[in-house]
Amino acid sequence: MLNEALLRVAVSGASGRMGRQVVDAVSTSSDLMVAACIDIGGDLGAALSESKAQALVDFTTPTAVLGNILTALDAGVVPVVGTTGLTAQGTEQVRLKCAQTGIGVLIAPNFALGAVLMMRFASEAARYFPDAEIVEMHHENKLDAPSGTALLTAKRIADGRCGATPIAIPAAAHGLPGARGAVGEGEIPIHSVRLPGFVASQFVTYGGLGQTLTIRHDTLDRSSFMPGVLLALRRLEIIRQAADIVYGLENLME
Amino acid sequence: MLNEALLRVAVSGASGRMGRQVVDAVSTSSDLMVAACIDIGGDLGAALSESKAQALVDFTTPTAVLGNILTALDAGVVPVVGTTGLTAQGTEQVRLKCAQTGIGVLIAPNFALGAVLMMRFASEAARYFPDAEIVEMHHENKLDAPSGTALLTAKRIADGRCGATPIAIPAAAHGLPGARGAVGEGEIPIHSVRLPGFVASQFVTYGGLGQTLTIRHDTLDRSSFMPGVLLALRRLEIIRQAADIVYGLENLME
Amino acid sequence: MLNEALLRVAVSGASGRMGRQVVDAVSTSSDLMVAACIDIGGDLGAALSESKAQALVDFTTPTAVLGNILTALDAGVVPVVGTTGLTAQGTEQVRLKCAQTGIGVLIAPNFALGAVLMMRFASEAARYFPDAEIVEMHHENKLDAPSGTALLTAKRIADGRCGATPIAIPAAAHGLPGARGAVGEGEIPIHSVRLPGFVASQFVTYGGLGQTLTIRHDTLDRSSFMPGVLLALRRLEIIRQAADIVYGLENLME
Amino acid sequence: MLNEALLRVAVSGASGRMGRQVVDAVSTSSDLMVAACIDIGGDLGAALSESKAQALVDFTTPTAVLGNILTALDAGVVPVVGTTGLTAQGTEQVRLKCAQTGIGVLIAPNFALGAVLMMRFASEAARYFPDAEIVEMHHENKLDAPSGTALLTAKRIADGRCGATPIAIPAAAHGLPGARGAVGEGEIPIHSVRLPGFVASQFVTYGGLGQTLTIRHDTLDRSSFMPGVLLALRRLEIIRQAADIVYGLENLME
Repeated sequence: MLNEALLRVAVSGASGRMGRQVVDAVSTSSDLMVAACIDIGGDLGAALSESKAQALVDFTTPTAVLGNILTALDAGVVPVVGTTGLTAQGTEQVRLKCAQTGIGVLIAPNFALGAVLMMRFASEAARYFPDAEIVEMHHENKLDAPSGTALLTAKRIADGRCGATPIAIPAAAHGLPGARGAVGEGEIPIHSVRLPGFVASQFVTYGGLGQTLTIRHDTLDRSSFMPGVLLALRRLEIIRQAADIVYGLENLME
Repeated sequence: MLNEALLRVAVSGASGRMGRQVVDAVSTSSDLMVAACIDIGGDLGAALSESKAQALVDFTTPTAVLGNILTALDAGVVPVVGTTGLTAQGTEQVRLKCAQTGIGVLIAPNFALGAVLMMRFASEAARYFPDAEIVEMHHENKLDAPSGTALLTAKRIADGRCGATPIAIPAAAHGLPGARGAVGEGEIPIHSVRLPGFVASQFVTYGGLGQTLTIRHDTLDRSSFMPGVLLALRRLEIIRQAADIVYGLENLME
Repeated sequence: MLNEALLRVAVSGASGRMGRQVVDAVSTSSDLMVAACIDIGGDLGAALSESKAQALVDFTTPTAVLGNILTALDAGVVPVVGTTGLTAQGTEQVRLKCAQTGIGVLIAPNFALGAVLMMRFASEAARYFPDAEIVEMHHENKLDAPSGTALLTAKRIADGRCGATPIAIPAAAHGLPGARGAVGEGEIPIHSVRLPGFVASQFVTYGGLGQTLTIRHDTLDRSSFMPGVLLALRRLEIIRQAADIVYGLENLME
Repeated sequence: MLNEALLRVAVSGASGRMGRQVVDAVSTSSDLMVAACIDIGGDLGAALSESKAQALVDFTTPTAVLGNILTALDAGVVPVVGTTGLTAQGTEQVRLKCAQTGIGVLIAPNFALGAVLMMRFASEAARYFPDAEIVEMHHENKLDAPSGTALLTAKRIADGRCGATPIAIPAAAHGLPGARGAVGEGEIPIHSVRLPGFVASQFVTYGGLGQTLTIRHDTLDRSSFMPGVLLALRRLEIIRQAADIVYGLENLME
């Protein structure tokens, strides 16, 4: 007999670095249980139906993620997805399947609640402080610069200005190329530091008359994603009822 | 003939340190004009009626502020007040006068927009990160510790938790008294640094699993109050129509 | 036959959390080799002589450390010790044995090179900036407040002033107890933040006319100790020839 | 009769923004006195000889500075110079005059003691942490990017490595131009933030295994230069006896 008090969670990529943490986090939560652990090569459809899973947490690979989402939706299971790399075409397929099944999907590029709040506040502050710059600091092996989070933050700031006009800061009369950073959306400069000793950190600084406001997020390790995963599972009905792709954890936070 | 396109602003304490900055800021704003400058000892009532002022900005003293507010309300002028130190009894008198005249008053302990946003974000983050500590840094001549802004921030964080429960961090088994700071509302520790080289700075740090989130505000000088004063003047109708005391600039910000 | 190009390192507490990292760090260094791994209960004396170890790295317990050091010295092996908790009496015994054997010992409370540099710079800055405060941030399970590193930093700052006189900052006229922190050596305030999401961080801020100087160290995890352990092993002759206790890694750094 | 206990200081550019502060700082120091105030157009030579000045503090313009230095040296007065913009040819003339007169000159690009210490520590840390990046933050009207201080800091870090080899961080596989900053000496990235609310701030972050070390300097206003000017005046004999150009305040600090 099922314990109906517990939400039944399947985990794909369960033996991967993130997957193991998800299994731990779910199994130590008194209102959740791990219904099934699946790895690449396993039969996800069978596992979902046998385990009577209600949610599927997916931290796998760009290749595997599309199939996993579609399989889950067909099985009536709500996908909570942290895997990045879904193509435009794959996105279209997911949308269609959501519409057919009437079930929504959460796709979140960043499950760290602190990063999500940083971006929300970054957007809210921009109306009063339209002048901002972003500095992000990551470990030395990161492949992209700026980070995806920094680019998204710039977009959120640009959107949040609501017509407030930034100062037109002139290009440096003397200088070296690159000093003023990359140009993000809304002409917001982004500076990318790459050093050992960082996992993932970012700050946004706003400048105004006689004052600055800074919002900073620092990550120690990937355990920082777990509270966000659990929050998504606890608000699963919001995702399910969206019957569409829900982009980003912020849609589940008041 | 009055230029009806310009809001007419009277300034009390006009030759004080803050007052001079208000006069400058108003007179260089294309939508505002300085209608009257009054100092302690001047006849505020006469000045307000002769100048046809619509707003009174008051940065004076705890002794002068109550009379100034009542005079302004009687003259149909909306007070925008940065002076602190109104007593409970004085507050009651102001409320009564607001009700009689149907005109509201803004009383704001901090006109720095960055500080107001810091407090707002501090409150919003607490629901997801109930564990927070406050570190505030001021110049060596500040008389109080913690600062009023720090105490208010603790209150906003405590209110913002919405039931989220902080970790019960045990008292240090070994230690020195004071190391863990003062206890603000919601058991939030507040640490007060006093050093030359600071004007007024504060950060709030939230801790969660594998991550921290920090919101910081730094002030260079009192010019940081001016954008907040101008914002209040531009949203004067919201204050007027409140027909009561409006506490804090945040009530004028969406 | 021994590879004489490699320094032979024994590790006590080898299966502990720190010990395992030491074994990894030594074995992946091209100029060092792990000669022996010993755990509590093992015969350290036999292991040292059989393995022809030249150095013993000890991260064990306050109970085990004294015996381990004495055994190593008797065996002609230089101890590199990160274990804390040696008593005054134990310290005396170690000194005596150093004198008898003509071999020195390194005892370092903190092997993180960044922390050692932070303390050195903290001391050097104090001559020009006698006014300083310390803020240290650790995880919520730390038992002491302030941290040992913070107390030591205060001592280093006080020593470094060389007669420069700090401002006599008056006690807050109004305030809450604890706001101004614990009082470290030289009347230097120390503020201890305890939050999840931190491992071990500390900053020292100096205030002067119109400026502040801040030195900050952040630790992600205990791997931060390894470069310091390797540096000590590579400068083993300095320790050996001291024929006494060498306190702190800073004595091995120019 | 001269008060021989007081050092006699002439100030050129005395009515400029920096000059006025120098006059204030000197006149409120119990061991110094203002002997003469000269502005552009005044007869510096006459003023120096009439006032029996021993030192000349010069914050003037790139055009005026060379003449002022030569005049002072001819009058037997030690120049303490904060003006930048001396040409290579002008530098040569100064050197020659120093040799002829046997009197030295201090030329310091930055009189903020905190900035000088930041650069010194930046250099000392590089031997143990060869991987570093610089982020500097200035007001929106600064003409150059990176700042002169940032470029000099990079040089000091590169010199301080003493053979320690930084990690070869690969170029970002994906990215935007400028994200990784300008390339300073030693391949050290420099990132320049330009926002209102800053005067002049800079931090250097070093990354190592599991840790970061950060050294930061923040300036509130130009008063931060005064302690450095006074320090130079109090160590005037070191400058005089150098009989050459002394570059940078650090040469006067142990």
